[in-house]
Amino acid sequence: MPHLFAGWQDTIVAPATAPGMGAIGIIRLSGAHSIAIANALFSGKNLPDQPSHTLHVGVLKNKEELLDEVVVSIYRAPKSYTGENVIEISCHGSPYILQRIVDACIQQGARLAHPGEFTQRAFLNGKMDLTQAEAVADVIASQSRAAQQTALNQLRGGFSKDLKALRDELIHFAALIELELDFSDEDVEFADRTQLMNLVNQLYQKVKHLKESFHLGNAIKNGVSVAIIGKPNAGKSTLLNALLNEERAIVSEIAGTTRDTIEEMLNIKGVMFRLIDTAGIREHSTDRIENLGIERSRQNATRADIIVHVVDLLDEEKTSEGFGWLQEYSSKTITVYNKCRAWQHRRKAEGSEGEPPAPFIDAKEGFGINELKELVYQKAIGESVNTEATIITNARHDEALGKVLECLNDIKAGMDRHLTGDLLALDIRRCLHYLGEITGQVETDRDILGTIFGKFCIGK
Amino acid sequence: MPHLFAGWQDTIVAPATAPGMGAIGIIRLSGAHSIAIANALFSGKNLPDQPSHTLHVGVLKNKEELLDEVVVSIYRAPKSYTGENVIEISCHGSPYILQRIVDACIQQGARLAHPGEFTQRAFLNGKMDLTQAEAVADVIASQSRAAQQTALNQLRGGFSKDLKALRDELIHFAALIELELDFSDEDVEFADRTQLMNLVNQLYQKVKHLKESFHLGNAIKNGVSVAIIGKPNAGKSTLLNALLNEERAIVSEIAGTTRDTIEEMLNIKGVMFRLIDTAGIREHSTDRIENLGIERSRQNATRADIIVHVVDLLDEEKTSEGFGWLQEYSSKTITVYNKCRAWQHRRKAEGSEGEPPAPFIDAKEGFGINELKELVYQKAIGESVNTEATIITNARHDEALGKVLECLNDIKAGMDRHLTGDLLALDIRRCLHYLGEITGQVETDRDILGTIFGKFCIGK
Repeated sequence: MPHLFAGWQDTIVAPATAPGMGAIGIIRLSGAHSIAIANALFSGKNLPDQPSHTLHVGVLKNKEELLDEVVVSIYRAPKSYTGENVIEISCHGSPYILQRIVDACIQQGARLAHPGEFTQRAFLNGKMDLTQAEAVADVIASQSRAAQQTALNQLRGGFSKDLKALRDELIHFAALIELELDFSDEDVEFADRTQLMNLVNQLYQKVKHLKESFHLGNAIKNGVSVAIIGKPNAGKSTLLNALLNEERAIVSEIAGTTRDTIEEMLNIKGVMFRLIDTAGIREHSTDRIENLGIERSRQNATRADIIVHVVDLLDEEKTSEGFGWLQEYSSKTITVYNKCRAWQHRRKAEGSEGEPPAPFIDAKEGFGINELKELVYQKAIGESVNTEATIITNARHDEALGKVLECLNDIKAGMDRHLTGDLLALDIRRCLHYLGEITGQVETDRDILGTIFGKFCIGK
Repeated sequence: MPHLFAGWQDTIVAPATAPGMGAIGIIRLSGAHSIAIANALFSGKNLPDQPSHTLHVGVLKNKEELLDEVVVSIYRAPKSYTGENVIEISCHGSPYILQRIVDACIQQGARLAHPGEFTQRAFLNGKMDLTQAEAVADVIASQSRAAQQTALNQLRGGFSKDLKALRDELIHFAALIELELDFSDEDVEFADRTQLMNLVNQLYQKVKHLKESFHLGNAIKNGVSVAIIGKPNAGKSTLLNALLNEERAIVSEIAGTTRDTIEEMLNIKGVMFRLIDTAGIREHSTDRIENLGIERSRQNATRADIIVHVVDLLDEEKTSEGFGWLQEYSSKTITVYNKCRAWQHRRKAEGSEGEPPAPFIDAKEGFGINELKELVYQKAIGESVNTEATIITNARHDEALGKVLECLNDIKAGMDRHLTGDLLALDIRRCLHYLGEITGQVETDRDILGTIFGKFCIGK
């Protein structure tokens, strides 16, 4: 496969640390000439004489121009990230100096790396399969414990192992079919068709289970959107603040899709939830704006993964005026009753007893907030995330698994129609092809690779 | 000195790469327990058994939680940046993961480093003097070739060497005075006072020369501010664009001190110039706004290092109405005559010959722009920057050198008044003290150290 790629033989270079000023910046080189290129700039030692996995302090010079005092790390092929000779230059973290060093490496014959090209080379050199390569970008982008653990599990080959098991079972199945095929002249069904059917059904269940994990995986990777809606003055803003207060350290504001919607990030038990705040709209009091607000709440709610509907216990009418449409989304809606303290005081003053409808909270006093978080978590994720289990987080994998399921269905249908082994074998081959596409075991389309690695940051 | 500092015995930890997402992130540990702390998290090898300057690939775990796949670099004391045991952990460049690893190191007994604490330890452990430590921050912040080269020269001990030479000469001078002192009972002037006077004068000239370089050094480090002023429609905006067009790649807009002033960065021969743009003001045409504009131009011009006064050759009146105040700043003003093409065409049409007054340009056609840049450079910097020479870029050094000059003056005055050697020796000691303060050879005030290292980024 390697020879298919233009520039494959080049030695590539790129800054590998985040842009901006820092104490340390790293420039990475990979390719046959990495060590020679670094050596042409390095004064102190002769780098080609140095063993792999060693560090060398010295000065980098481009002709007469002093570039920086640096530390050079040497990784010799194949014991490196890419499987090629890799050099990492650790310099002072000035963007200007990083640029000068990259320029100097290019003058010495290196080429600027494309985004993800280091990892792409690791894949092409067999250092990792495609699911592991994809996990690299996910690990870097991970912002919560669940996302990080899921990505690390995939990086460390958890998903690959599951896929290999599926592949082995399919090949076993194919072997049984082939056996039948060999004896086809004798017109016997050598393989026990009932046993084969069981095998296919088991495979189908396993793939289906994997594919179904994508819903959870997507929530873990991209966060769960939660729309907080309710009538004006029901306490939406107060609830939002109460939810965020405990997690201020990792809260950040990001601009939403519209200027009137702000998303706040909330980490519940290692999963990111994006709270969609439409509360500010209630500040305006003209009818038209109020209606606009309700309409926008509705739009946000229908798009959200979870709806938290805040009802004011003190609201005598308790009408759901304007919220009739919520019934349609009942499966993803949590209705929560706010202002329970004031309600209880009022009841007591009236001499009556009783509890408000559950779940009840008092956003202002922070009562019931943790319980509400748990409810939101359960609705989105279930009891807890088993990050040891394989969870699909990648739409490409989800799609491929969908195709695998189709093939398995075709095989099942074929067996029902007593298709002969040679025809079944075609479907099995298709099935293996789609599984292989996930890990990159079958020849992968260049455009697909381009899409996968194009999403990486440069230097990885 | 070390024992003066609280927390000196701690093992410190901090992220060392720029904040944000990148391919690689680095966490740095320094202190006696660095290797043990990293080893408590690292699976794969026993790090305490590994030699200095080696790289180790493995997995970092905090109890059962998988943190990341990492590469650990080992630097054993004293052969490290800080002079202590140093560990660098290279992980995936996710801010979340960096934070988790720093947290895990803290759980294992490390303390979060203060800004600049690694470099402060390098200074306190005698790995570098104070001028070199200060240069580290300047290297990281350097944005132009001249700034980078000057900072690197200082980092590599160029300034320290000059100071040591001065110190040696002073000590030699002190020895001669002491010699005289030893024989004072005999009431002879043993040291030849004329020779001593020559020595002091030489020293004075050298220190003066160094101190004078601060003007240039400050320009190199902080950039040279250039105000472009002139009457409305003289072509200020066009000139600004013409100046910037050739350097688009490294131009960035930064918000000025007032909302109406935008600064644009221009790199001329490796030195940064900050072009102060007051041109937009001419768009408004009421008298009041126009006057405001002239007043603002004037304020910017008086503060700027260089003034470029654009005069429109087609302006029949050629009055300097509103610019009379410029005369006061003639030493930093370049008057440039714009629209030379149109002027020449008109002359030709009129049948007359002749050149416009120099320097003339045509901003619209880009004529004379490079020559103008050269003029601006020469006015600010001189012929060229000799980055090999020692250039003072630090206000603290400038101030200390000022005090050294005062002491040398006192010594000269004392000699003129035929003060005895023991009194002169007091002044010499003061002089040595101020020189020592620059490099940190004399005990440096904790507050001063705090100010110096507090300006660093964390992890350095």
